Amino acid sequence: MLIVQKYGGTSVGSIEKLRLVAKRALATQRAGNDVAVVVSAMSGETNRLLALSSEFRDGVDDREVDVIVSTGEQVTAGLLSLAIRKTGGDAKSFLGHQVKILTDSAHAKARIQSIDAAPLKGCFEEGKIAVIAGFQGQDSTGSITTLGRGGSDTTGVAIAAALGADHCEIYTDVDGIYTADPRIVPNARKIARISYEEMLDLASLGARVLQLRAVEFGMNYNVPIHVRSTFSDTEGTWVTHIKEDMEQVVVSGIAAVRDEAKITVRRVPDSPGSAYRLFQSLSDAGIVVDMIIQSQSKDGLTDMSFTVSKLDHKRCIEVLTESCSDLTAAGKAVVSDTPVAKLSVVGVGMRSHSGVAGKMFGILAEAGINLQLISTSEIKISVVVREDVVDDAIRALHEGFGLHLPVEA
Amino acid sequence: MLIVQKYGGTSVGSIEKLRLVAKRALATQRAGNDVAVVVSAMSGETNRLLALSSEFRDGVDDREVDVIVSTGEQVTAGLLSLAIRKTGGDAKSFLGHQVKILTDSAHAKARIQSIDAAPLKGCFEEGKIAVIAGFQGQDSTGSITTLGRGGSDTTGVAIAAALGADHCEIYTDVDGIYTADPRIVPNARKIARISYEEMLDLASLGARVLQLRAVEFGMNYNVPIHVRSTFSDTEGTWVTHIKEDMEQVVVSGIAAVRDEAKITVRRVPDSPGSAYRLFQSLSDAGIVVDMIIQSQSKDGLTDMSFTVSKLDHKRCIEVLTESCSDLTAAGKAVVSDTPVAKLSVVGVGMRSHSGVAGKMFGILAEAGINLQLISTSEIKISVVVREDVVDDAIRALHEGFGLHLPVEA
Repeated sequence: MLIVQKYGGTSVGSIEKLRLVAKRALATQRAGNDVAVVVSAMSGETNRLLALSSEFRDGVDDREVDVIVSTGEQVTAGLLSLAIRKTGGDAKSFLGHQVKILTDSAHAKARIQSIDAAPLKGCFEEGKIAVIAGFQGQDSTGSITTLGRGGSDTTGVAIAAALGADHCEIYTDVDGIYTADPRIVPNARKIARISYEEMLDLASLGARVLQLRAVEFGMNYNVPIHVRSTFSDTEGTWVTHIKEDMEQVVVSGIAAVRDEAKITVRRVPDSPGSAYRLFQSLSDAGIVVDMIIQSQSKDGLTDMSFTVSKLDHKRCIEVLTESCSDLTAAGKAVVSDTPVAKLSVVGVGMRSHSGVAGKMFGILAEAGINLQLISTSEIKISVVVREDVVDDAIRALHEGFGLHLPVEA
Repeated sequence: MLIVQKYGGTSVGSIEKLRLVAKRALATQRAGNDVAVVVSAMSGETNRLLALSSEFRDGVDDREVDVIVSTGEQVTAGLLSLAIRKTGGDAKSFLGHQVKILTDSAHAKARIQSIDAAPLKGCFEEGKIAVIAGFQGQDSTGSITTLGRGGSDTTGVAIAAALGADHCEIYTDVDGIYTADPRIVPNARKIARISYEEMLDLASLGARVLQLRAVEFGMNYNVPIHVRSTFSDTEGTWVTHIKEDMEQVVVSGIAAVRDEAKITVRRVPDSPGSAYRLFQSLSDAGIVVDMIIQSQSKDGLTDMSFTVSKLDHKRCIEVLTESCSDLTAAGKAVVSDTPVAKLSVVGVGMRSHSGVAGKMFGILAEAGINLQLISTSEIKISVVVREDVVDDAIRALHEGFGLHLPVEA
C-alpha cells in the first residue's frame, strides 16, 4: 500500500516524540508499504516565529511572514529525516517548492492548486521514506506561501491525493472523533466511520483534530482519512464517502460552538438593499457572521437576528450603530443577547429519516431548554441556546438519540 | 551605484539591531543606489539549530542538517524585509533557491558555482531592496546546501560579483582590519586599504571579521570589499587589488595564531616515502598540519618539525606513535614542545623590498625572543615562538616596523 501519515505539532514536539514518530513511520514502511510523512512545526514554534514577525508586521502583505513561519515545518522535516536514519531506516525531506506544491498567492491562507508527485515516487524507488514539510507551498512567482493554521492536515490529504495513496493517516493527541465532547458526555462513543459531509458539519467536534479544508480535499479527491492517536495502536475514526451500511445511523454526533453572541437588529425595512447593507458593513469590518434568521415581515419592517463570535461582539455593535443606524428606528434598534451557544445534531441518516427535528425539539423541551434560533440543512439541525444550558442540552440529546449505544454492525 | 551589504549575526541579533540595519540599508538606497543586503542568522540561532540536529545526526550525510540550519538565515531575511517596510521602504526576501545560488553537493561546506542575478535586478526595477539569505544554496538536484561557518560573507561577495556591483560592504562589530590586534598593541592603526593577497595572509587578524573564501571570491571576480562597523559611519578597511600607491607600505600588519603545538619527529629516514607516510597518517586522522620544517639531513636521517592546533596535539602524538613508530628510532622519537604561537608579518611591499626578514629577526633578537621555526613566502614571514612571549613579540615588531605611524598619502 501507499500510505501518507501526518503528524501534528504535539506529536513532534520534542526529541523523544520525534523518536517515537520515526519508529512508527519505519514500522509502517517495514510492513511493506511506501510511506510519505507530512509534519507540522514542533509545538510552540509557529507562535514563536509569529511573535518575532509581529515586531515588524504591517498587515499589508504577508509574503515575508510566510518566509519566516514556514521555517518551523522545515526544521521538523529535517529532524524527522535524521531521526528515521538514526532509527535504522532511510528518509529524505522535501519542502513545498521541492514537490512543487503550487498555491495561489493568498499569503497566510493560500490554497493548493497542484502537486508534483514525481520526486516522492523517486524517493520511494530508492527505498526511502519521504518526509514533507506541511503547511507550505509556493506560488507561481516562486514565493513561499502558507496554508493557514492547521494547514498541514490539508498538505497531508493533498499529498495523498497527488500520490493516489490508499489513505491518509492524521496522527494527533486524541484517538478519534467522538459522538460528543467526552468532557461533557462521559459515555460518548468513538465514531468508527463517518462521512466527509458529516465531518464538515461536526466542525466543532473535529476541528481540534482535523482541519475542515483537509476534509473537503479528501471528499473531492476521494482520499479516506484515518484520524488516530500518535501514542497508541488502536483504530481511530475513518472519514470516508458514505457507504450503504452507514445509512443505519440517523444521528452521528452532537457538536457545540460556545463563545457566540446573538445580535438582533429590530425593525429593518424589508427591502433587498437593507440586508445587503447590514451584512456588507460587518464583512467590511472583518466580522464573520454565522447563523442568520429573518423574522416574518410586519408593516414592511422585519427583525434580523444573527450570531457572531463573542470576540467580535463589541465591535459588531459599534459597526452597526455607526453605519446602519439610519436603517432602523432610532433608540434600542440593536439588541444583543450574549452569551449563547450553537448546538448541532448531525447525521447523513436525516436525509432518509423524517422527524429528526421534531424529536430534537421534543428532547430539548422536556429538558426545559429554550431555543432562540433554529436553522436546518440536509444533514444538520442547529439551534442557539443560552450558553449556561448547553452542556445539559448536549447530554439530553446524546441520551435521547441513543448515541451511547453500540452501533449495529 | 549598485551596492551589496552583508550583515553578520551580531548585527542582526535582536529586533533593535534589525531596526538599525533596516535604516542603514534604506539610507543607502535613498542616497541613489540599488541595494542588495545579505544576512546571517541571528546570533546564537545557528548553534541552537545545530544542537537540535546533533540529537539525531549520524555524520554520514549532512543533507538534512543543511535543511535545518539554513532556516536561521531564512528567518532573518524575512524579518529584515519586514523591518525595511516598517521603516518606510520596500524590500523583498530571496532564499538560495530563489536566486539559483547553484553549489556543488558538499553539504555543510558547499562551494558556489553560479548565481542568477535576474530576480534581484527585477527587484531593483520595482524600487525594492533585495534581502538575500546568506550561507545557503541549492545543488543540481534541488537539495539545500550550506557554505560552512562564515559562509554569508562568501554569499555577499558572490552576489556582488553576479550583479557586477560597485563594491560589497561587510558589516561587523569592529570598524576594520588593524595592523595588529588592538587588545595587544594599543596604538595599532586601522588599515585603510589592503590587497586581497595580504588579507589572505593576515587570516588570523581578519578571520573574525572576514571569511577567507569571500576574500578569494573578491580577488577572483574583482569585487572591492569594504569591511566596516554596523554601528558607526566611519570608513573601515577596503580590501582591493593592489594599487601602485599601496606599494609604499612594506609591512601591512602582524597576525598571530595562538593555541598551536609544535611537534618534532626525530631521526626520520630522509627518503621520499617517509614524509608522505607521516603526513598522510595525520591527514587520515583529520588533523590539519600548519608549518612544516625539515632539518638538514645527517647520516640519512632527518628531523621533521611541524605545528598543529593545540586541540589536535594529544591525538597527533597518538597517531604518530601508533602508525609511524617504525619510521624512527625507538624511544623518545616524538618530541612535543607545546605551547607555541605562530607570528606572521605580512605585506605586498616585501616583494620589492629586500631585508624585511633580516629586520624582523633583528627586532625579535633585540627583544630576547627565541625563534623555533621560520617559514617565508613572497609576502609573508612566519615564525614560531613560545606562546608566553607572543604578545611581547607582536608589540616589538609593530613598533620596529613603524606600523603605528600614519601612512603617507
